Amino acid sequence: MHTPQIKEKLAKLYEDLQGLSKRISGYPISTDFNYEELYPFLGLPLNNVGDPFEDGTYQVGTHKIEKEVVEFFAELFMAPKDNFWGYVTNGGTEGNLYGLYLARELYPKGIVYFSEDTHYSVSKNINFLNMRHIMIRSQHNGEIDYEDLYESLKIHRDVPAIIFANIGTTMKEGKDDIRKIQMMLTDLRINQKYIHADAALCGGFAMFMNPRPNFNFADGADSIAISGHKFIGSPIPCGVVIAKKNLVQKIARSIGYIGTLDTTITGSRNGFTPLMIWYTLQKLGIDGLKNRYLKAKELADYAEKKMEQEGLTVWRNNGALTLFFPEVPDWIKNKWQIATQGVSHLIVMPGMSKEIIDGVIVDIKQQTKILI
Amino acid sequence: MHTPQIKEKLAKLYEDLQGLSKRISGYPISTDFNYEELYPFLGLPLNNVGDPFEDGTYQVGTHKIEKEVVEFFAELFMAPKDNFWGYVTNGGTEGNLYGLYLARELYPKGIVYFSEDTHYSVSKNINFLNMRHIMIRSQHNGEIDYEDLYESLKIHRDVPAIIFANIGTTMKEGKDDIRKIQMMLTDLRINQKYIHADAALCGGFAMFMNPRPNFNFADGADSIAISGHKFIGSPIPCGVVIAKKNLVQKIARSIGYIGTLDTTITGSRNGFTPLMIWYTLQKLGIDGLKNRYLKAKELADYAEKKMEQEGLTVWRNNGALTLFFPEVPDWIKNKWQIATQGVSHLIVMPGMSKEIIDGVIVDIKQQTKILI
Repeated sequence: MHTPQIKEKLAKLYEDLQGLSKRISGYPISTDFNYEELYPFLGLPLNNVGDPFEDGTYQVGTHKIEKEVVEFFAELFMAPKDNFWGYVTNGGTEGNLYGLYLARELYPKGIVYFSEDTHYSVSKNINFLNMRHIMIRSQHNGEIDYEDLYESLKIHRDVPAIIFANIGTTMKEGKDDIRKIQMMLTDLRINQKYIHADAALCGGFAMFMNPRPNFNFADGADSIAISGHKFIGSPIPCGVVIAKKNLVQKIARSIGYIGTLDTTITGSRNGFTPLMIWYTLQKLGIDGLKNRYLKAKELADYAEKKMEQEGLTVWRNNGALTLFFPEVPDWIKNKWQIATQGVSHLIVMPGMSKEIIDGVIVDIKQQTKILI
Repeated sequence: MHTPQIKEKLAKLYEDLQGLSKRISGYPISTDFNYEELYPFLGLPLNNVGDPFEDGTYQVGTHKIEKEVVEFFAELFMAPKDNFWGYVTNGGTEGNLYGLYLARELYPKGIVYFSEDTHYSVSKNINFLNMRHIMIRSQHNGEIDYEDLYESLKIHRDVPAIIFANIGTTMKEGKDDIRKIQMMLTDLRINQKYIHADAALCGGFAMFMNPRPNFNFADGADSIAISGHKFIGSPIPCGVVIAKKNLVQKIARSIGYIGTLDTTITGSRNGFTPLMIWYTLQKLGIDGLKNRYLKAKELADYAEKKMEQEGLTVWRNNGALTLFFPEVPDWIKNKWQIATQGVSHLIVMPGMSKEIIDGVIVDIKQQTKILI
């Protein structure tokens, strides 16, 4: 293709995507980021291959920055001070895969317990890793059904328990209570246990919720995964996984080729995404992150109230940014990019405007009228 | 951190990395890319979630561009015209993981055969996927030992054979001959078979080599993985995996949440890397890609000749961009970022200068003198 054609095609694509990005209402994607200051780094062959806490032979990377990102979340998630490890992943799926992989290496014969509301990628991960598993029923709000979990654990007290907990399910932002689950495991004397928390969406703000969900290391998590392109915001999918260091060390292997420990899932690793996450964290700080949540929550309050005023059915977990309601028809789904599975949902993320919310509600209201 | 501090820290980091990127000699990383024209896309929440060949509910992505990238390589690798599928990955590891995953789903009880010179990530992948495997001896040039492979296959004629072939090993750029391996399988009447080609480095130029290595779909590959950040060049690790469509369809599952087929390994996927690969392919075209190889080969010829003139031991596969030689000491390894495992190597990639080559040779020569 000749240069003018390439330019033209790119310009058209950019225009289309810019339009579409103004109508995202059903995916947990912040749109208010600006990383222009970091663009010059894209002129360099960045590669964060290997363990971020170790030096390797290939040096054109951002391991130090990556470490700071890991340290930030380790502290936020109340990880034990001298016993954490982590890295920046390509997104939630990789973080969850890492948690499950670690659990499997520690307990090869363990059973994975996860609720039916768990993200679709988890079944895929479990299939990948060839792990024994039991799907547990969910409550209407998306949270795991503790009775069903307890009964299932009770039947398999002789088998190590690997709990895949959701800290914000994909559809309803339901949060499994890790403290409650730990108490069950203690009650049943299941000592061979591992809890992974999938905090893809809520990891960025769960610590600021009131009451605070029980999801962090102090509550009993062994590893936590969070997405960077959701609440934090990034044009490239990414995430962070944090795990207890003593567990990771049990499975690490040293690799001559890169002259460092091979503790991460992928080989060559993105050196630009750590920079983006770091940049936002530095700009915001803890207070900024908290305000970011409170502002989004206010907008979610507005949306909830407005839907109720319009006489529409809407559900919402306490303090959640996700509103869910009966399934909307295809034209609304496609117009507003609304994810649908059993129910439909609206996720109020930083960068979203009242206009989008109003627009979605007008359309749902109109649809209701058609049906009546 | 305050804005001036952030600016300062970024400026210092950029300067350091720029310096380091001028001394990469032992990793297969092209450094001559320029993607400035694409930077505006980083203002958008791009996400290529789901199958690139299907439409999904989330629309802010580059599926069409990704499809064109897949089509380009499918044609280059002589994939059957109406029977290919693929996607842009986060790098070679993911492409190889995909190939092995596909093979395992088709032949859950198969044995994976791979040479001892295979990239370290492959053992990790195999462990991940819990697959039975046999490591085969290598020849000195890095190519698989066909006799050892034949004998091993012969002992297990009752088990499906999954061949992980290297089209350019990490250390020596050794290339396994897929046509020869297919003949062995035919000879032994092993009909349940799968061949994955890891063409991470050489996928970008193997078609232009003379003689051409036997590695593509016409030669008998079922899937091929290639890296985007190696020969093509990109500041973010990425790659492409191509597989036969009829095989992929056997294992695909439809996922309601994203309203599309869930055929890829990761959930949320990078929408920016497909743009970068597409951009380079469009700018270069087939001829440009070929010239890119010939120019790098010329420089590798220069390096080989120079090392020989200096009386240094050096080995090189026919037409390869990799030169390998006895292990160099740590100070040279660190100064020039030279990967070392049994041997050390110099990889002549687009963007590399004669000055770097000369500098490395001067240091090796000096070291040899010290030893004498």
